Amino acid sequence: MLCWVDGRPDTQVSVSDRGLAYGDGLFETIAVKRGEPRLLMRHMARLGEGARRLHLPLDLSAIEQELLAFCAELGAGVAKLLVTRGDGLRGYAPAQPSTPRRILLGSLFPAYPPEHAERGVRLYPCVTRLAEQPLLAGLKHLNRLEQVLARNEWHDPRYAEGVVCDVSGRVIEGVYSNLFVVRDGQLLTADLSRCGVAGVMRAEILARAAGCGLAAQVRDIDYAELLAADEVFLCNSLYGIWPVRELQGRDWPVGALTRKLQDNLRSLLDS
Amino acid sequence: MLCWVDGRPDTQVSVSDRGLAYGDGLFETIAVKRGEPRLLMRHMARLGEGARRLHLPLDLSAIEQELLAFCAELGAGVAKLLVTRGDGLRGYAPAQPSTPRRILLGSLFPAYPPEHAERGVRLYPCVTRLAEQPLLAGLKHLNRLEQVLARNEWHDPRYAEGVVCDVSGRVIEGVYSNLFVVRDGQLLTADLSRCGVAGVMRAEILARAAGCGLAAQVRDIDYAELLAADEVFLCNSLYGIWPVRELQGRDWPVGALTRKLQDNLRSLLDS
Repeated sequence: MLCWVDGRPDTQVSVSDRGLAYGDGLFETIAVKRGEPRLLMRHMARLGEGARRLHLPLDLSAIEQELLAFCAELGAGVAKLLVTRGDGLRGYAPAQPSTPRRILLGSLFPAYPPEHAERGVRLYPCVTRLAEQPLLAGLKHLNRLEQVLARNEWHDPRYAEGVVCDVSGRVIEGVYSNLFVVRDGQLLTADLSRCGVAGVMRAEILARAAGCGLAAQVRDIDYAELLAADEVFLCNSLYGIWPVRELQGRDWPVGALTRKLQDNLRSLLDS
Repeated sequence: MLCWVDGRPDTQVSVSDRGLAYGDGLFETIAVKRGEPRLLMRHMARLGEGARRLHLPLDLSAIEQELLAFCAELGAGVAKLLVTRGDGLRGYAPAQPSTPRRILLGSLFPAYPPEHAERGVRLYPCVTRLAEQPLLAGLKHLNRLEQVLARNEWHDPRYAEGVVCDVSGRVIEGVYSNLFVVRDGQLLTADLSRCGVAGVMRAEILARAAGCGLAAQVRDIDYAELLAADEVFLCNSLYGIWPVRELQGRDWPVGALTRKLQDNLRSLLDS
């Protein structure tokens, strides 16, 4: 499969890379159709925000050009972009100046069962809770052991995703998705200022909701509120929207608002 | 410098390694003298505990044999051992079965200024706080962005280390050291059940204290208690013990108990 390291075809990196040593870097998982990255501006904005907060000296316009060239060559599938702080010395202090490394990994588009989008998915209630770290909250950084532990909680393929709460019990997100709740015709999604990954599809949905006059709130959500929701759905940059049809014995039909947003997004991912 | 990947000389790993993708692995930083790893049993015990908690299927006795062979070849310096969950597919669920990867990196012993151990070091008061995540607390895992951020807070070489608290304000550790407080002839070090790295030198000091009848407590320490201490010292597996001589305008002479423990440890690291 297509794979570039620092702009050239390669499948290996130095064992001294700080991405490996400390998870000192960021990533983006990008849908590619017709040779183009989808939601490019949102991916680049999140990467830029992560670089700012981690003090990673990235040349964002060069990274964008490289990503575009990679996607043109890939054609269709998924482009995973990793940026790390590059090679390190021993110890946490980075080399001065540090030279960030770019890694681009291409893969086929995942073969999601069509019924996930049509009929909805069952959600596994993860017991792994997310720690509250405002310095890293919202970023798609390379420190993902919490997600590894949460994903390891279930092996039953009837669950397509799991829902995770923070250590205080607030509902945050799925393991590899963001989560929305519909209540009284309003959209709700979790405040991600303490933990969680601020997904690009979540941002896109919030923007589209605002654009069509649909009320949307970003705030803390407790577990009882999730179970009492009229509709629940998941989203990410690859599959778009999956309705949630079951969580801990609570069943939901696919809701009208969820369908409306799926229809609204169709052109983004299918064309 | 000497470098092995999965038992063979190599300096590169696959870009698909889950250590790079998610920080999905563990490490140990080991002092090597006369061709032998120091505190071997403690390093292996911590690695084993990490593997158990992260569900990493490690062959610990094979890893130990490989480490011994590596140290024999290295002779003297530092051996950094990384173990990751090996190559991954896209997504957080690991390959079944997964094949962990071992990486051994040799380096020269750091040239610490002798006055750090003799006269003590100044401690930088980091504002970066550690998140509370009991599932990962104590482990030397590869998710180390908090340490990267904390170490980036100071560039003034007069500070040899920084002290970090947790999000609740408890004193936890140094950025790359554990911390002990002496009060009324008693040793105190932080409870690491919510965050922090349970260092092998910390464990060695606690064991030696018990062996020579010195009272030692592992419990929460607040910042005022740190500033009010009779003596403060840092420890890690490479430098042993450094007295702390200054923090935020509070000065300490090198204390008698700190000196006694330094003397006690001398044969471990110097011989």
